[in-house]
Amino acid sequence: MNDLIKEIQQFRDDRGWGGNHDARSLAISISLEASELLECFQWRSAEDSIAHDKQAIVDEMADVFIYLLQFSDVLGEDLIEAARAKMEKNALKYPIPAK
Amino acid sequence: MNDLIKEIQQFRDDRGWGGNHDARSLAISISLEASELLECFQWRSAEDSIAHDKQAIVDEMADVFIYLLQFSDVLGEDLIEAARAKMEKNALKYPIPAK
Amino acid sequence: MNDLIKEIQQFRDDRGWGGNHDARSLAISISLEASELLECFQWRSAEDSIAHDKQAIVDEMADVFIYLLQFSDVLGEDLIEAARAKMEKNALKYPIPAK
Amino acid sequence: MNDLIKEIQQFRDDRGWGGNHDARSLAISISLEASELLECFQWRSAEDSIAHDKQAIVDEMADVFIYLLQFSDVLGEDLIEAARAKMEKNALKYPIPAK
Repeated sequence: MNDLIKEIQQFRDDRGWGGNHDARSLAISISLEASELLECFQWRSAEDSIAHDKQAIVDEMADVFIYLLQFSDVLGEDLIEAARAKMEKNALKYPIPAK
Repeated sequence: MNDLIKEIQQFRDDRGWGGNHDARSLAISISLEASELLECFQWRSAEDSIAHDKQAIVDEMADVFIYLLQFSDVLGEDLIEAARAKMEKNALKYPIPAK
Repeated sequence: MNDLIKEIQQFRDDRGWGGNHDARSLAISISLEASELLECFQWRSAEDSIAHDKQAIVDEMADVFIYLLQFSDVLGEDLIEAARAKMEKNALKYPIPAK
Repeated sequence: MNDLIKEIQQFRDDRGWGGNHDARSLAISISLEASELLECFQWRSAEDSIAHDKQAIVDEMADVFIYLLQFSDVLGEDLIEAARAKMEKNALKYPIPAK
């Protein structure tokens, strides 16, 4: 994942795009890409969407991830560690129900 | 990352939540969590947001990632591979400008 | 506003699109159109966005409103009345600060 | 609708909130409120959502509308006129299918 972050940085710097990639703008971009992903499922079921547009869905999913990696990098936080820490909080908030 | 996906699945199954986690519902969840992340930056600059609410921002970032991992798993696609493939497309779409 | 709702219904029915316009799908559409409106402001200031893309911004704003009207109609609620009622709640929640 | 816009302005000015209500921040707010509306429908059908949370749904719908009115006001555009103009464009883009 760290290699991928470096590739994304290289891609961005090669094009001179780094200047306005602050956390607020990246949060907007994550939200916009998440909407484009959701748009693949508008007006139809999950099955129909995947059957007709699998590649577009995978591409939009990738776009969300690419911006999320940039965001985590700007924040100086590791996505995997952040997810593990959040899941520990979730486990306290939502205990396993007794059987 | 694969270990993390298994931990998320275990968390979900322990709570009996798997039933309605189809790709469309997960796409909605990714979009909602991305909005909660963006909400941390509402009405103020990136600097102010991070200075006052760093932990909330990291937690919301983690939530987007957790749902994105579940989404990729339901689709049977690897996030890192999908991001690399998308960046190759982006490199063709946006060539490096001549100096 | 009621005339406009009827025109939107007519437009939709003329094209046979009414079948899947339930409240959940319309809520998704409102969210997607709101993202397209926000996209007009990505990577630049409000001033720059309006200077370069005023018509696109007005069109996206209109799309949000058109889906919001359909949503209110499906719910059987009047937008203006709902806004007035919500503002009364807001006034209780956020009292006018003493001078 | 114009009375309502004046009431919203008064509400905002009474609380000294006008300073950062530029079009970009309002577009973010519209998107965030649209997500809160969509959240009412997460993990369940439209019927279940309305049956259990009608008032919350109406309140979130109202929030989207309140920000949309402010946005239209900042832009100096009328929502109803903008919607009519957009529907004329839509009618050209999507002609009525022959029977």
